[in-house]
Amino acid sequence: MKSPKPLRLIVAQAILGLILTATAMADDKWGTSALMVVIEREAGSVLVIDSAQDHKVLGKVEGLGVLHHASISFSRGSRYAYVVSRDGFLSKIDLVELKVANKLKVGDSAIGLAVTQDGKYIAISNYKPGNIVIVSDETFEIVKTIEADNSKTVGLVDAPNDLLIVSLMDANEIWVIDASKPDFPVIRKYTDIGVKPYDGLLTPDGRWYIAGLFHSPWVAMLDLWNPENITKVPLPKPPDKPDLEPVLKIPHLEGWIMADGDLFAPVIGGEGLAVVDTKTWKSKEFIPLSAFPVFAMARPDMRQIWANYVLGKNHDTVEVVDIKTKKVIKILKPGKKIFHMQFTPKGRYVYISSNGDNKVLVYDTKTFELIKEIPAQKPSGIFCSDRSNKFGL
Amino acid sequence: MKSPKPLRLIVAQAILGLILTATAMADDKWGTSALMVVIEREAGSVLVIDSAQDHKVLGKVEGLGVLHHASISFSRGSRYAYVVSRDGFLSKIDLVELKVANKLKVGDSAIGLAVTQDGKYIAISNYKPGNIVIVSDETFEIVKTIEADNSKTVGLVDAPNDLLIVSLMDANEIWVIDASKPDFPVIRKYTDIGVKPYDGLLTPDGRWYIAGLFHSPWVAMLDLWNPENITKVPLPKPPDKPDLEPVLKIPHLEGWIMADGDLFAPVIGGEGLAVVDTKTWKSKEFIPLSAFPVFAMARPDMRQIWANYVLGKNHDTVEVVDIKTKKVIKILKPGKKIFHMQFTPKGRYVYISSNGDNKVLVYDTKTFELIKEIPAQKPSGIFCSDRSNKFGL
Repeated sequence: MKSPKPLRLIVAQAILGLILTATAMADDKWGTSALMVVIEREAGSVLVIDSAQDHKVLGKVEGLGVLHHASISFSRGSRYAYVVSRDGFLSKIDLVELKVANKLKVGDSAIGLAVTQDGKYIAISNYKPGNIVIVSDETFEIVKTIEADNSKTVGLVDAPNDLLIVSLMDANEIWVIDASKPDFPVIRKYTDIGVKPYDGLLTPDGRWYIAGLFHSPWVAMLDLWNPENITKVPLPKPPDKPDLEPVLKIPHLEGWIMADGDLFAPVIGGEGLAVVDTKTWKSKEFIPLSAFPVFAMARPDMRQIWANYVLGKNHDTVEVVDIKTKKVIKILKPGKKIFHMQFTPKGRYVYISSNGDNKVLVYDTKTFELIKEIPAQKPSGIFCSDRSNKFGL
Repeated sequence: MKSPKPLRLIVAQAILGLILTATAMADDKWGTSALMVVIEREAGSVLVIDSAQDHKVLGKVEGLGVLHHASISFSRGSRYAYVVSRDGFLSKIDLVELKVANKLKVGDSAIGLAVTQDGKYIAISNYKPGNIVIVSDETFEIVKTIEADNSKTVGLVDAPNDLLIVSLMDANEIWVIDASKPDFPVIRKYTDIGVKPYDGLLTPDGRWYIAGLFHSPWVAMLDLWNPENITKVPLPKPPDKPDLEPVLKIPHLEGWIMADGDLFAPVIGGEGLAVVDTKTWKSKEFIPLSAFPVFAMARPDMRQIWANYVLGKNHDTVEVVDIKTKKVIKILKPGKKIFHMQFTPKGRYVYISSNGDNKVLVYDTKTFELIKEIPAQKPSGIFCSDRSNKFGL
């Protein structure tokens, strides 16, 4: 052997290098229950931020398609995020390895998605073709397509006992699908709901499904404990316009809040929030705000409502209402074009996307201080991985 | 060079081996939002199970001290679990690397712990010495010791705005600590609460703190939105014993359920659950069970209550109550000495510890089928990592 030593040295260095790399990787780990996933709309990418590590950016995942109005759901255990793009691609994003783990074409124009309670299936609602597509998480293949009478489908949510609930925008129906059965049967169809459902929500307890309607002055409410009928709950009207016919679209139903025995909801034509008694469904108070809110979201302890205004006026403003006193206690101007907000799991902090300023702002909800600015490319929706543990999200 | 090839081959194999190991490790990853951590009481260890991966055992972490009556809280983001042992050791368990990341002596006889809302501090309540100890998560050192007038401290919980609430068992007081201030001041002390508090809970919205009392026929209730006074809420009595003086310990307050506008609570001397109207705090109904329940826990969708019986009779039994009909719909016999139960985050499954049979049983809560048996050494408490996202846990 002429020169075994240098070779051994090279070997030792190579092995040491691998060990050091492994060690560096070992430190680069995180829990996945308080991750904030930010949609970068124009870039077709998401930023993944760990709110539990001083709001550190973990990385970016690209190649997700057209993310206008995109929504994100999470796998059971929050290892993965699922995003469906408007051009019909379902992507499975690995939140530990920060890469696209899988991708599948599920429609031509997709609008929403839901993960079944058991975590085994991802359901997608399509505008075109009008259907609901069920994808197996394990094989990442389409296992069922449920035709929706040529109707666009909207307001798709997961509910207890592996149910899925969806509204048919053109057929004016609400359907309940049993995803615990191998053939995914539609077990209930409600036809007398009103005209043109456009969105739906499930209350956090998984009991009440509420569909908003374009052309009826009520919301359609389904009580899953008593699923015989749909209840039509009249929409509150602004106090100065008692004769207004609410035929316009009301905001995202994400902005409906049940707190302290009341419902807090934006109303058509009103610059504020109606307070509705949930026993009688009658308006009992009106909280004036500076504009027409598009999102009005409750801090997880249900003590504050944070509202923003996307349509025209005050697009740069966020207002905070104290639920106990029903008064505005803070007005913030976080940046240009405020698109969305998302609380960290117990609501200590809130993330706000300023689409116009290309950044995400992190505020302390106790002191209202700005604690971090995170550069992001045209950010829109923000989704916290704690959604995996909540019904309807 | 006489024989460079074999050496190169050895090197190549060594490097390949390392790469393969790294690859195997890369597959061995998980999300941390649906982990089930099972206390093995006599062994001083915990089993970590991923409920999102078909209830797979990820591993065991040992060397945690005396785990009688041990409780677990989780870090923000659920990367870590904190466990405090009865002999006063706080351990920080890494749920990604499955090892003890840190350990610290915090008292001589510890009983409970809580993580502040911002995740920066772990607070421990001690019987001996009577105090509350605050540990920095970052440095893992004690940053403050709050003396509790030589009283055992119990019922320690975290609340919104970085508050901590604790009861003083011997001093008969409830204290509120502000953990957002550098010196952790006690900002409120309630003295007129009743005699001998022994446990406390915070409602899931983070608003109401309820302390159970050994020697007073009421519970002490603190409304954090109106913190001026303590309200004394009378304890319900079993219907056949209207004159009973409830001076015995009622079960863990974990077994108090607010659902569908009612409170469901075990009552002293009664084999069943009292249903109490939360508007008037009057008993309105009694659900008979086969024995005196020690835990009565609601499935996260608040549709079922699962009850078990540790003290004497029916120690091998679990009964399921339907909250809508208020009837027992299932009686299970999972094994000997049923100690504890814990639902997976959205309640599709429940974990039950059979201390006597050395196993953890996983049931489907929709079909009541036993879907998995997991060997465990004298299992007692089971804690789901979704607790990191809940107040008071």
